Amino acid sequence: MKVPVKTIEWLGDRVRLIDQTRLPKEESYLELKDHRAVAAAIRDMQVRGAPAIGVAAAYGIALGALEINTSSRDEFLSRLEKVIETIAATRPTARNLFMAAERMKKAASAPGSVTALKKRLMAEAISIHAAEEAATREISRLGASLINKGDTVLTHCNAGPLATAGYGTALGIIIEAHRQGKGIRVLVDETRPRLQGARLTTWELKAAGVPFRLITDSMAGHFMQRGEVNCVIVGADRIARNGDTANKIGTYTVAVLAYAHQIPFYVAAPFTTFDRNIATGAEIPSEERCAGEVTRIEGQAIAPEGIEVCNPAFDVTPHKYITAIITERGIIREPFGEGIGEVQKIKKSR
Amino acid sequence: MKVPVKTIEWLGDRVRLIDQTRLPKEESYLELKDHRAVAAAIRDMQVRGAPAIGVAAAYGIALGALEINTSSRDEFLSRLEKVIETIAATRPTARNLFMAAERMKKAASAPGSVTALKKRLMAEAISIHAAEEAATREISRLGASLINKGDTVLTHCNAGPLATAGYGTALGIIIEAHRQGKGIRVLVDETRPRLQGARLTTWELKAAGVPFRLITDSMAGHFMQRGEVNCVIVGADRIARNGDTANKIGTYTVAVLAYAHQIPFYVAAPFTTFDRNIATGAEIPSEERCAGEVTRIEGQAIAPEGIEVCNPAFDVTPHKYITAIITERGIIREPFGEGIGEVQKIKKSR
Repeated sequence: MKVPVKTIEWLGDRVRLIDQTRLPKEESYLELKDHRAVAAAIRDMQVRGAPAIGVAAAYGIALGALEINTSSRDEFLSRLEKVIETIAATRPTARNLFMAAERMKKAASAPGSVTALKKRLMAEAISIHAAEEAATREISRLGASLINKGDTVLTHCNAGPLATAGYGTALGIIIEAHRQGKGIRVLVDETRPRLQGARLTTWELKAAGVPFRLITDSMAGHFMQRGEVNCVIVGADRIARNGDTANKIGTYTVAVLAYAHQIPFYVAAPFTTFDRNIATGAEIPSEERCAGEVTRIEGQAIAPEGIEVCNPAFDVTPHKYITAIITERGIIREPFGEGIGEVQKIKKSR
Repeated sequence: MKVPVKTIEWLGDRVRLIDQTRLPKEESYLELKDHRAVAAAIRDMQVRGAPAIGVAAAYGIALGALEINTSSRDEFLSRLEKVIETIAATRPTARNLFMAAERMKKAASAPGSVTALKKRLMAEAISIHAAEEAATREISRLGASLINKGDTVLTHCNAGPLATAGYGTALGIIIEAHRQGKGIRVLVDETRPRLQGARLTTWELKAAGVPFRLITDSMAGHFMQRGEVNCVIVGADRIARNGDTANKIGTYTVAVLAYAHQIPFYVAAPFTTFDRNIATGAEIPSEERCAGEVTRIEGQAIAPEGIEVCNPAFDVTPHKYITAIITERGIIREPFGEGIGEVQKIKKSR
């Protein structure tokens, strides 16, 4: 098993990112030299997908640390605080972003000189990246056991290597099941408004040689009604203590459809996506993005000028619609609250 | 009440159509002088919406009749048969197309000279158009009684004046409820792949001054979950004897969502949309359209080249998801089979 694409790469004094907004037309890379450039790349979704955002944020904070030119520890920490704030303010929903920010902050609280702290922060970012990569490899392996021979799997948005800076969560499982010779097929929701399914998931499945068909989001129900979907797997941006899951807008619709057709609906996410501070999905902050994402596609207007638009980037799927959550520490089923607690203990006892 | 846009106009020796593929960017009209041009306009969706397709088909057949240069009644009828076949072969789902073809065929079976038959066919097409216009006016009036003050109504695809060559069905009701001062708001599904919601429904609601917000199809569930949708109204392409309804792809998904959230789901359609020959929705033929409608938007590629795509143009909503069907002869509720039969008798006793 090898990571199919270098979504994010640390080059010692800069970060290299594949520009996800230009795929599939163009495979181009950005080299970012300061934390503000990383913040902009997250905000503009040149890097997206909760785990990848977490990794980019960690490297962005490491870059921000390198930018601070002082030998005073106090001044360093005060300026680092501002760097972390800038990175954390880019997008509100993905838990991994805040998890990375917290880990980097904690790393900076260790004793030592500014030079030592800078090294420590770099090492911490590299470690966050390595952990996400390892987690997605394990998720892929564990999740593949839930896929049966000949299954047609429906997925929404993109939770592949691009989204995770590793093997992928939902797509990691799909690619692993394919690699195991299960003869699966995939239905890819295009995922308006940003079309991550049409642009990124198709690109990744094509590269991995997995047979797939692209559909519009509005077709998911139709193919379930015809009995042509065996299970659904999606990623997650944040998971509450009770299992309620925020993910790309449209996920809730797919979950309700799967429930109505008695089709298993799986969420795949590394443990960094769980938010222990949040009891239910009602507390997860969402993001309203700009109207132009809906009214224009590839720069072309598809609606009259100046109309009112809604553009929530995420929705919340209540845990009752979720058959299981696939994490790197095990597959969790109802009651999710207990399962998540149990799996959290695994880490503590390690 | 006045028809807001002349979707289709008969000019004595040609048909004038608004080109629905160019809206909302451009309000341009086509003047079609022969039946093949009308067939192409239906096939390419320059005219679309089941009732409007029916009216265009009737005029197309009338044009085809005018094209036949013979005084032999037998030759005329034999060549007219081919004209009707060409028109009927354009699209498979909309019942109104076949209803119009049947009515024109019956009109041609009356006694009389070729000249008399040509006049008769023109008169019949004009009468089909007038009947559709009258039916949509009555549907708008009847349906508006189901909308409560302050409601937010969700609609999918376009069932407005453009789709009906009259006042509209789903959108006729919405516009009439607005005109009655009910203070309603509309959520408009963009309706991929052809974006009739984003392009046409917004254009029509804007012209009518009805407050609305455009959403992607994937957002419908989210707004229902938040309690922000009071009812759904859609049009129909064909309705079976038991009430099962074929309509634009994505309608079924909206119906399942409405059912799960206990939100009334209304279908609005003139009686020409009912197919007495079909017991259930399973018998309704659907249409698979070209992959390019999914992989390209406004000529821009949104997915990798050469991938496999599904593009069914319609889905079927089983009657159990439908709260009521609004026709020009009354509002029909479960059991739909009986209701449709009762309403059919109204016509016969007239």
